[in-house]
Amino acid sequence: MKKKVAIVGASGYSGEELLRLLLQHPRVELVAVTSRQYAGQTIAQVFPKFAHHPAAKTLRFTEPNAELLARQAEIVFLALPHGVAAEFAVPLLQLGCQVIDLSADFRVNSAAVYKEFYGHDHPAPELLSKAVYGLPEIYREQLGDASLVASPGCYPTSILLPTVPLLREGLIRPTGIIADSLSGVSGAGRTVKQDYLFVECNESVRPYGLPKHRHLSEIEQELSLAAKTAVTIQFTPHLIPVNRGILTTLYLAPARHFSNVAEQNELNAKIAVCYKAAYADSAFVRILEGDSLPDTKNVVASNFIEIAWRLDARTGRLIVISALDNLAKGASGQAVQSFNLMCGWAETAGLAGAAF
Amino acid sequence: MKKKVAIVGASGYSGEELLRLLLQHPRVELVAVTSRQYAGQTIAQVFPKFAHHPAAKTLRFTEPNAELLARQAEIVFLALPHGVAAEFAVPLLQLGCQVIDLSADFRVNSAAVYKEFYGHDHPAPELLSKAVYGLPEIYREQLGDASLVASPGCYPTSILLPTVPLLREGLIRPTGIIADSLSGVSGAGRTVKQDYLFVECNESVRPYGLPKHRHLSEIEQELSLAAKTAVTIQFTPHLIPVNRGILTTLYLAPARHFSNVAEQNELNAKIAVCYKAAYADSAFVRILEGDSLPDTKNVVASNFIEIAWRLDARTGRLIVISALDNLAKGASGQAVQSFNLMCGWAETAGLAGAAF
Amino acid sequence: MKKKVAIVGASGYSGEELLRLLLQHPRVELVAVTSRQYAGQTIAQVFPKFAHHPAAKTLRFTEPNAELLARQAEIVFLALPHGVAAEFAVPLLQLGCQVIDLSADFRVNSAAVYKEFYGHDHPAPELLSKAVYGLPEIYREQLGDASLVASPGCYPTSILLPTVPLLREGLIRPTGIIADSLSGVSGAGRTVKQDYLFVECNESVRPYGLPKHRHLSEIEQELSLAAKTAVTIQFTPHLIPVNRGILTTLYLAPARHFSNVAEQNELNAKIAVCYKAAYADSAFVRILEGDSLPDTKNVVASNFIEIAWRLDARTGRLIVISALDNLAKGASGQAVQSFNLMCGWAETAGLAGAAF
Amino acid sequence: MKKKVAIVGASGYSGEELLRLLLQHPRVELVAVTSRQYAGQTIAQVFPKFAHHPAAKTLRFTEPNAELLARQAEIVFLALPHGVAAEFAVPLLQLGCQVIDLSADFRVNSAAVYKEFYGHDHPAPELLSKAVYGLPEIYREQLGDASLVASPGCYPTSILLPTVPLLREGLIRPTGIIADSLSGVSGAGRTVKQDYLFVECNESVRPYGLPKHRHLSEIEQELSLAAKTAVTIQFTPHLIPVNRGILTTLYLAPARHFSNVAEQNELNAKIAVCYKAAYADSAFVRILEGDSLPDTKNVVASNFIEIAWRLDARTGRLIVISALDNLAKGASGQAVQSFNLMCGWAETAGLAGAAF
Repeated sequence: MKKKVAIVGASGYSGEELLRLLLQHPRVELVAVTSRQYAGQTIAQVFPKFAHHPAAKTLRFTEPNAELLARQAEIVFLALPHGVAAEFAVPLLQLGCQVIDLSADFRVNSAAVYKEFYGHDHPAPELLSKAVYGLPEIYREQLGDASLVASPGCYPTSILLPTVPLLREGLIRPTGIIADSLSGVSGAGRTVKQDYLFVECNESVRPYGLPKHRHLSEIEQELSLAAKTAVTIQFTPHLIPVNRGILTTLYLAPARHFSNVAEQNELNAKIAVCYKAAYADSAFVRILEGDSLPDTKNVVASNFIEIAWRLDARTGRLIVISALDNLAKGASGQAVQSFNLMCGWAETAGLAGAAF
Repeated sequence: MKKKVAIVGASGYSGEELLRLLLQHPRVELVAVTSRQYAGQTIAQVFPKFAHHPAAKTLRFTEPNAELLARQAEIVFLALPHGVAAEFAVPLLQLGCQVIDLSADFRVNSAAVYKEFYGHDHPAPELLSKAVYGLPEIYREQLGDASLVASPGCYPTSILLPTVPLLREGLIRPTGIIADSLSGVSGAGRTVKQDYLFVECNESVRPYGLPKHRHLSEIEQELSLAAKTAVTIQFTPHLIPVNRGILTTLYLAPARHFSNVAEQNELNAKIAVCYKAAYADSAFVRILEGDSLPDTKNVVASNFIEIAWRLDARTGRLIVISALDNLAKGASGQAVQSFNLMCGWAETAGLAGAAF
Repeated sequence: MKKKVAIVGASGYSGEELLRLLLQHPRVELVAVTSRQYAGQTIAQVFPKFAHHPAAKTLRFTEPNAELLARQAEIVFLALPHGVAAEFAVPLLQLGCQVIDLSADFRVNSAAVYKEFYGHDHPAPELLSKAVYGLPEIYREQLGDASLVASPGCYPTSILLPTVPLLREGLIRPTGIIADSLSGVSGAGRTVKQDYLFVECNESVRPYGLPKHRHLSEIEQELSLAAKTAVTIQFTPHLIPVNRGILTTLYLAPARHFSNVAEQNELNAKIAVCYKAAYADSAFVRILEGDSLPDTKNVVASNFIEIAWRLDARTGRLIVISALDNLAKGASGQAVQSFNLMCGWAETAGLAGAAF
Repeated sequence: MKKKVAIVGASGYSGEELLRLLLQHPRVELVAVTSRQYAGQTIAQVFPKFAHHPAAKTLRFTEPNAELLARQAEIVFLALPHGVAAEFAVPLLQLGCQVIDLSADFRVNSAAVYKEFYGHDHPAPELLSKAVYGLPEIYREQLGDASLVASPGCYPTSILLPTVPLLREGLIRPTGIIADSLSGVSGAGRTVKQDYLFVECNESVRPYGLPKHRHLSEIEQELSLAAKTAVTIQFTPHLIPVNRGILTTLYLAPARHFSNVAEQNELNAKIAVCYKAAYADSAFVRILEGDSLPDTKNVVASNFIEIAWRLDARTGRLIVISALDNLAKGASGQAVQSFNLMCGWAETAGLAGAAF
């Protein structure tokens, strides 16, 4: 039995990646795709690379209309800017649709925090308590019953999956956490600005958004829940000249000091056990062993996240590195993973064969 | 029912792409992968990005051994350098395996031409007449019965698919053909040479192999067969800083001159009909319409080839442009397409969902 | 003695490159730079990378005003869109300035051809006969007396320098010329369009502007002058993912057939002599010898053009390849070279040390 | 009066950059260049892009020979691997040459530390106390009298220039320093290894050398001298797909806490004064103001380092970011800067006009 699915806002990079994934998903019937810019054109006209798919020649982009969408679709993906997403989520939910929102609108559970970080009042605060944060490795059970999923940001995913298990198990201190992240340019969306022109990005590396990036709101909320205490972290995003991929290097303080090789080995073993237990059922988390270190090229176009760690005997710190594809596990792949869970299917449905 | 399949030489870029495609192929049981360099290691150890596949943790690279392979596999893919490939093809065929060779060893049907272009005697000239040139869009029927397939080169595929139908229909002259090709760096294989270092290729564009590239031997053979007359072409390959992708611009002379708009429209219509007829059953050939022009980013990691053309009223020439992924439709994807036909399956099996 | 110089339109890539070159030119006093977008800001504020230059902290961008410019500057560089450039050239010339125009406005000497290719009436047809085409290797003497210089386009430079000497000497036929060009993305200017976003250009190669690119007007004009007969050529530009650089591959027909090695050697020798004679005094033309082939990375950020050729005994064709930097020899470097000649200085002044 | 200069090991990327800088240096006579690989060939043959320089057509690479070099040159640059460099430095110094060594051989003043980090006994421990660490902004005076200069590594330069003044002035604590660095691929040298192939680096980001990179030895030595106490830092290098450039993000703890806006402003002012005082005479240090943040594209091919900082009121930390070109300010440009000081010239001689 297939689900009837719609995508609202299918012309950006996340929307295009949703299209790619949902067109080839064996249990999805794509019934509507919307785009103000491309309304009236078929998928094949806008994205020639999907032209081989049977639906691409017949399905046309439409102007987004909540009532119409609710009549066609059972589940709606929103790939819209924050603020706008909520405007569609409210009527869609009222009309009985399930909603998976890829924007930031429902990621934080406090309207005050939302206003602090996004600069305007929350458009639908009454829904905040209903939304499930769509990080399946952490909220797998809650997603089974969710009607509204707030799919996490790309940076948060790259930071939370490596740290939440360590905080929960008390293996690291909740203070002094630093996350240094490198993102490919698609992370900025299909935004037509001088900053994202080829010549401005190629042969260039630069930090941006210092020191208070919006994603901190959801990162610190989830870390605080894991640590059972308020967590404030340092986060520096950088733009690097690749299309897709995020690499995050985390600087963490082990809860217990290690002062010799035996203690170091013991701590390494505990971390290994912690990750193994946390992600035993998580098909998309790849804990690297031996000398391997994460590399974005190993996860591009897949829904995997690579994680590795090193203890530094010189400084006493724990360094954890993660790599994921910002459009896949960092956005649309993860949204499909949540979708699978909402439908009661294996979380890998339609995603396992999607790797590059 | 699954086929038992082996890959000989699975550590280069073509071999890695074969691995990617065959691991996710629903009707393939991968029984052996060989690599002198990696013998003893599992697929997961050598290629962490395939680690999630059940076979990747158990299947180990072995030293290549024809007798052993023949006992394990029904069909063997050879991703080896020319000259070496034939050494394995001969015993494998004798032992009853079907062979799909990705090297140049069986692409030309004349041992003399082989020697002229490859500089040494052909290692198994008796097999030349048995090999089927693995371009499914041209030799679909013959591939059904093939025991030995010579999978085409990447440049030849990008040149032959746009020109063969036009030559067969007599729409272009067989003289004066020029093919100007641009290839990503993976086309050079995983060759550890200074020329292919990142810093030597990035921010660089350059021609190479002028004026007599080895691929001319198979290109001209196939064009001559299509034209029913000996064809000699001009071919200039260039190296450009992308990982994957070939773009070929062809300069062709229409058989009949067009001197006004009506004649131009008529010729455009004939070309459209010609391509449509030639590729009606070819799922992987995408003839572009309207203003669209081929772009390698639309075919990367897929088995598609994009083709578009323009008539130039100022010069009387026909310009045809094609784009494909040199590792997919230009090598391993095409080899799997031939494999599907050899097995009597749909040629898209295991390939449709493999796009990026 | 220094020249007082102004740049009108200094915020695009050509303007920025002019800034780089003129700031470090030993005989230039930069007296004005204009930019509507940046009016009021210093050079250092707009381009931090020039902040170390004494002038960068004091010289401010202004709104362009011909009268004001004419009072300040002796020579004015126009780095403006076509159409707009002529609006400034007319009053500046009347007020006694010399003008070097980097746009297309004065490159063709026929107002009718201009209209055919640029789609609007020429804004100042009376000036067309006064402009000197700023290709110093061809018009060195005329540039000494020029008051208005039409600096050539990037593609035309890459095509004309390799072909004009051969046409003048009658070594090639004026018919059937094909130029296949690859350009870095800065060739599109600092144009904020989706097509030029990093993600749209990176890992992408594509043709564009087929089949009648505007640059054909000046290319064919100059080739016709060299050949003393009307020349029509085939020209295909492609966009490749590098910041700077053009590589052009030319397909030419030798005037006299060569049918054996002796004749081929003789023709090679004639071509070598032809280039040597034509460019003996041209410091920026590098005719490659031996096995070397042009590579854009060898000319980036320099005013050089690399040229090499190969005779193909199989097809009878002559292949000539050139490489240059589209912003340097293809635009701003060449404009400074013309400027030097207008001032009666060595054409290399301020350019020799500017290479990367 | 010109200095007679030689380069030993001129075929790697640092050597090539030295060639570029010294060929255009107005006060340098290049008398010898050595390379085992290219012995016998002229500079023009090995590096066509330098062919226009008068010396490039006559000066030939030779096998390195200390006695011969000492007869020809007054100052010798060594661009050799560590261990090998000392073998040349010893006889060259004995024969009266001044030596600028770009390797790590004389950067640490303790033979024990050298052995710990480089894995073998120091080849000439008696010279360690004579070498001056070639960071002109810190050791400007000592360089005037130096006979042996140990030119710093690229990562150390990017870390030391932003932190040494802050440590000296007691504005930051000497504990808990974290340096997260991103380097272009030329940082690995012209090393022909699979890891540095285009396809392995392009569309890839990855950490390496964790957690004890060799450069830590010189970094911690210099930080300890500045702090007057032993300093241990955390350092994570990453490889990113650009040719040239290092971006370093430093996480530092202000010595005095700031808990309101007034205190934050006061600390910002102190940092500004500290940098201004430290680098008032340093032409190549660019402290960014306003909203600007460092970007490697602003320093590529120049000898500049960009530095900016941000105080984070949420975490109490000071974030400092630097950008430089690993081959210029991080290696060869800095070596030329030291050379200028050794000769008693302005440190900018031959470097000011060398920017891209």
